[in-house]
Amino acid sequence: MVLQVHHRIVTHRIRIKDIALQAGVSTGTVDRVLHNRGEVSQATRDKILSLIQESDYTPNLAAKSLANRNPYRIAVLIPEGDVTNPYWKMPLRGIRRAAREIRDYNTGIEIYRFDMDSRSSFQTRLTEVLKSNPAGVVLAPVFQDQAAEFLKQLNDKGIPCVLIDSRLRKSNYLSAFGQDALKSGFLAARLMCFGIRPGSSILLLKLARPDGIIHHLSRRAKGFSGYIGKCTPSKDISIRTLTIDLTAPGEPAASLDKAMAEQPDIAGIFVTSSRASVVAEYMESRNKSEIILIGYDLTEANRKYLKNGTIDFLISQKPDDQGYNSIMTLCRYLVFKLLPVRIQYSPIDIITKENIDFYQT
Amino acid sequence: MVLQVHHRIVTHRIRIKDIALQAGVSTGTVDRVLHNRGEVSQATRDKILSLIQESDYTPNLAAKSLANRNPYRIAVLIPEGDVTNPYWKMPLRGIRRAAREIRDYNTGIEIYRFDMDSRSSFQTRLTEVLKSNPAGVVLAPVFQDQAAEFLKQLNDKGIPCVLIDSRLRKSNYLSAFGQDALKSGFLAARLMCFGIRPGSSILLLKLARPDGIIHHLSRRAKGFSGYIGKCTPSKDISIRTLTIDLTAPGEPAASLDKAMAEQPDIAGIFVTSSRASVVAEYMESRNKSEIILIGYDLTEANRKYLKNGTIDFLISQKPDDQGYNSIMTLCRYLVFKLLPVRIQYSPIDIITKENIDFYQT
Repeated sequence: MVLQVHHRIVTHRIRIKDIALQAGVSTGTVDRVLHNRGEVSQATRDKILSLIQESDYTPNLAAKSLANRNPYRIAVLIPEGDVTNPYWKMPLRGIRRAAREIRDYNTGIEIYRFDMDSRSSFQTRLTEVLKSNPAGVVLAPVFQDQAAEFLKQLNDKGIPCVLIDSRLRKSNYLSAFGQDALKSGFLAARLMCFGIRPGSSILLLKLARPDGIIHHLSRRAKGFSGYIGKCTPSKDISIRTLTIDLTAPGEPAASLDKAMAEQPDIAGIFVTSSRASVVAEYMESRNKSEIILIGYDLTEANRKYLKNGTIDFLISQKPDDQGYNSIMTLCRYLVFKLLPVRIQYSPIDIITKENIDFYQT
Repeated sequence: MVLQVHHRIVTHRIRIKDIALQAGVSTGTVDRVLHNRGEVSQATRDKILSLIQESDYTPNLAAKSLANRNPYRIAVLIPEGDVTNPYWKMPLRGIRRAAREIRDYNTGIEIYRFDMDSRSSFQTRLTEVLKSNPAGVVLAPVFQDQAAEFLKQLNDKGIPCVLIDSRLRKSNYLSAFGQDALKSGFLAARLMCFGIRPGSSILLLKLARPDGIIHHLSRRAKGFSGYIGKCTPSKDISIRTLTIDLTAPGEPAASLDKAMAEQPDIAGIFVTSSRASVVAEYMESRNKSEIILIGYDLTEANRKYLKNGTIDFLISQKPDDQGYNSIMTLCRYLVFKLLPVRIQYSPIDIITKENIDFYQT
């Protein structure tokens, strides 16, 4: 009887949704297999393909014909996700996920990547994007002055822009995605002070770009210092801010060695960026793993040091979802002229060695 | 030009997905409005209905005709979600969400609720469910011996069963949803020990049902004690376990007053169940809010005491998703005969005053 019902569904009309339910995967995964895009395991792919062969599934022809006319083109401007910027691999995954979904809506994506340490590479990409005259832009506004000028030019051309990972004060944009940086700094300080001995010192580490500090990293630092100043007078905790240029030779070891020598009571380190792993590596080399270390983002290197206990807490903001939602927001605006909420906050998730295996990114 | 494209999409073929994208809501929300089910705000409902009227959307007739033949009936057996068991409102939300989605698959849900403090009400519902001869069962196995016997009878009849919130050792079930209770207790102890002064005492509180202790609560306690025993010898932390029957008059105050008098150095309390709020209420009445309090689940009462700082950490397991996934797993099995993973672990999320507003439940 069960097989009859199965058969009945199949002969009526098979949808991507049916294949997905049957395979126990998302519709997005089925779509990836149908369009031969990567990131699906061979086992899952085989299962889905055999389910499709057994069914009478045919792609949506209406959507196909639609896709051949005047497509919307979204330009995405984000940093390269390499060894020095491992964070950016994560939103890119979500952007790719969105790209697959919005093709039904006659919308395509072009990705422009720049070197996060190079103001000129950023400018080069901005100029290219302006020339290409896209329908909309998703932008990581790393160099704020140039990004603000770029936004003005987009405004003049009537091109909507969604910001990702950081806001631009006083600029005109459609929507901005990111964490409430001040509150995430506040949470980091709360965790730090919860664990630290009274009378200790904390190091607030800015692993800065040579060419200016990114706005949301400053906000994290401000939230962190603000909590320490207001909420822990009884604990007598002092805080010292240190800026290290990771591109300089011998860093961060040289600056950290100096700071530790000057202030041997440092019991906690807070790293405002996603590069806590380089501090963890240093701490292990100096046998200082007992220092509390708190940082941001589930990069591969950070995961490793969280799991072995050198990093105590990582704060995560689901960057994959940020990438996905930035594209979907722009698509909704382009296709249906729907205005989104201006600021869209991401989660401030606390990840530890004990819960990382159960965390749903 | 934009409006032309909009129009083109509309005249081709309008799907629930299009309406959802246009309205900026999930397809589930559109479905709720289409089928006149609750839990959608009036503003959203109006927006969706006007979008539908402007479009040429017509419901899927194939799915409709299918729905009239031999429906699958899933029986759900869970506790009442009242004042003493506020937790159970949460998985029920996910079960309702699933119920709306699976109607396309010719599957309906009947919910049987029992009194968590009454073994006989549990037995009454079990008997009713067996009599009704459902296609499948979702069960919260609160009274473990009765639940084990019930599972045997379901097995004899060939009725598959999915467990929710707790496992049943040595029983035969299709799949079980819940947190890794041992590891969540471990995490709670890690947080507690991170914050507590060396030489203090911790109270491990079991707010027990009069009729036996629920399996996963014991596992949380075991994980908690295990961490304290192994990982913190240097901190010299002692732990005392106390069981309080909340249905007894004057509790929990009577037992807590006694424990505090006997052991004035108690600096932390861990509550294994979702009822940390009753301990928070007690602590406020005795001006003991400086004691570290860690508990489980984002019930309304717990949220209140987390926000005002009396509860320090709540551990959450996304019970809404547990409810949803238990139904979807059973539906996949019934409709497509797909065997699920036997144990499906939920997240072990850490919620504080600082990140609760950004938490996606």
